[in-house]
Amino acid sequence: MNNFVYHNPTKVLFGKGTISKIGAEIKEFNAKKVLMLYGMKSIFKNGVYKEVMESLNSNGVEVIEKGGIKANPILSFVEDAIEICKNENIDSILAVGGGSVIDTAKAVAAGALYEANIWDAFEGKAALNKSLPIFTVLTLSATASEMNAFAVITNEKENKKWAFTAGIDSYPKVTIIDPSIQTSLPKEQTVYGAVDTLSHVFELYFDGTENTNLVDEFAEGIIRTVMKNTKILLNDPSNYDARAELCWSATNALNGVIGSGRNYGDWATHTLEHSISAFYDVAHGAGLAVMFPAWMKYVYKDNPSKFAQLAENVFGIKEGTELEKAEMGIEKVSQFFKEIGAPTTLNDFGITADEIEKLTENAAIRLPLGRRKKLMKDDIREIYKLAVKV
Amino acid sequence: MNNFVYHNPTKVLFGKGTISKIGAEIKEFNAKKVLMLYGMKSIFKNGVYKEVMESLNSNGVEVIEKGGIKANPILSFVEDAIEICKNENIDSILAVGGGSVIDTAKAVAAGALYEANIWDAFEGKAALNKSLPIFTVLTLSATASEMNAFAVITNEKENKKWAFTAGIDSYPKVTIIDPSIQTSLPKEQTVYGAVDTLSHVFELYFDGTENTNLVDEFAEGIIRTVMKNTKILLNDPSNYDARAELCWSATNALNGVIGSGRNYGDWATHTLEHSISAFYDVAHGAGLAVMFPAWMKYVYKDNPSKFAQLAENVFGIKEGTELEKAEMGIEKVSQFFKEIGAPTTLNDFGITADEIEKLTENAAIRLPLGRRKKLMKDDIREIYKLAVKV
Repeated sequence: MNNFVYHNPTKVLFGKGTISKIGAEIKEFNAKKVLMLYGMKSIFKNGVYKEVMESLNSNGVEVIEKGGIKANPILSFVEDAIEICKNENIDSILAVGGGSVIDTAKAVAAGALYEANIWDAFEGKAALNKSLPIFTVLTLSATASEMNAFAVITNEKENKKWAFTAGIDSYPKVTIIDPSIQTSLPKEQTVYGAVDTLSHVFELYFDGTENTNLVDEFAEGIIRTVMKNTKILLNDPSNYDARAELCWSATNALNGVIGSGRNYGDWATHTLEHSISAFYDVAHGAGLAVMFPAWMKYVYKDNPSKFAQLAENVFGIKEGTELEKAEMGIEKVSQFFKEIGAPTTLNDFGITADEIEKLTENAAIRLPLGRRKKLMKDDIREIYKLAVKV
Repeated sequence: MNNFVYHNPTKVLFGKGTISKIGAEIKEFNAKKVLMLYGMKSIFKNGVYKEVMESLNSNGVEVIEKGGIKANPILSFVEDAIEICKNENIDSILAVGGGSVIDTAKAVAAGALYEANIWDAFEGKAALNKSLPIFTVLTLSATASEMNAFAVITNEKENKKWAFTAGIDSYPKVTIIDPSIQTSLPKEQTVYGAVDTLSHVFELYFDGTENTNLVDEFAEGIIRTVMKNTKILLNDPSNYDARAELCWSATNALNGVIGSGRNYGDWATHTLEHSISAFYDVAHGAGLAVMFPAWMKYVYKDNPSKFAQLAENVFGIKEGTELEKAEMGIEKVSQFFKEIGAPTTLNDFGITADEIEKLTENAAIRLPLGRRKKLMKDDIREIYKLAVKV
């Protein structure tokens, strides 16, 4: 087990009827004027907008709002919101939405206290360590952004989808997760959320660390829980307990619990996917469903033991050599993604072999990718090839 | 899944060579004068005292020290330490030791800011919500006190071993866990730590909550990890990775991770054990090794499904009726405790059937005990009978 620091100060209120508590929680931090960020129309349809506003009003918290954040949130929106913070003396940021909204909030909260352009922090030109306090009401479980310090933003002018953190200040102070509001999600959002969660587990599980036992148990537990409850929800979308399990699994996949003692995750596959969604209007989870099996098929042979462990502990595959078990396990992952209706090849997004070079160039801006196997440009190209139907 | 609040702000520094960081961590909180609490001689033998002192000195943190805390820490020590805090303008508490030292620190830290006697909080006569900042250097993994807000103290005049919390302030600000210093522990302390950890998992796992999936996976993962690595350590006490797994399992057994969405745990067995160690010089883990199988044997028939789940998922028992599986699982728990050399009956402590009434009276001061099955005085007596050799 590697040395590690575990520190996650986010307070989570989880369960039915918790959204109405947001105002009181924000008031505890003496917030006076909040910038509330949100996405498209869904929070008006499901009643979340009204409930949040009533809670803020009844606690005397002033609100300025800015909606319209889309999947793969963009830098220009972040810049506009930072301007509002600076001009309006905003003292806190409230994200009401999924990972895109929360990631935007993190960039805005740090950018509001930074004199130059926030993209500096994404480029690594500035190391930020302070931000306005962040609060979240989660409406779509997938990224775990509600309980970690990371944000991924797309610089749409440069086609760069990159990550940053302002450290401990980027953890939301309070996060509210009411699984019952996610029962109205379109089926594909549930599926992509599940894929995103599994991908986070895989990035950590397969990062090449030796001698991890407890965190592997936790990781395998999340995988089994997500697979089981996603199937339940596809048949019975309003099943509260299954939804709650999926929500809490998504948070735990990337809040530090299963990452302790590892090599910080591999993250090559996320970069391969970010290159796709930087160019195409592809949901992050959809892209990951294609890219993870491709990455697995490319890297497993060098050291199949962890893939064999996945096969044994998650899929109950006890027969065969280590290499055979590894192959059967990867096949099971692909089968599961197919079974829940996730895309399986880049062609499903209209991306053909002709576009591999463009994706490869973009993904290869900062090399090498990954930790388990350090991928160079030729490796990246081969993995994209594995993701295109032949 | 029940609604829950998850909020654990403790920062954990885990791994080899981390103890020397304590001074810098305390300095971050602007602490000027620390009361350092510790137990008996072990921190002088293993070098921890010297390392902590050097770190405090080199960071300009003034120290007053008070040692001598024993297992089952007592109220009079807490009262004396509170006096020191009040007279010496102590602004922070540093616990260097195991659960007894850390529990003492929590009571002292809260008591220093309370005008009356701290035992009021244990009796439920006062609800405290503030304390001096607490820092810990853990030298014995078992109680998880290093990453939770609970403290158990024995009022030795009244033979009451009871718990209290001052809420979020009772979480240590920073905890340092260096597993390598635990390699010099006597074998029985490793064993009792493992039993204590498993008991915390059992209290939560068997609390009667329905529909818990992810946290059950996590709980079963801890059980498997503890059993596996305890056996490794008994053959190879200096195995760092096995020790590290045991340490991190102990912390995660009671830091909220596996408790989310449950009914807060059962805790009847802990009360049954506390009644024992309030009278006799019995290590908490030793008492639990006797009482948990006894409790299980008394309660499982009413609702054997969770016991059958343990049998299946932890011990691989797939054959038989639910009741049969439950029984085989409980037998496996007993066998494991025996295998690692833990006591199996109250007679191992010199306690005979004659003393059951005294233990029963003491355990029955606040009834009912437990949540899964609400135990009244007659139930308690029967469980103690099951713990005595016939």
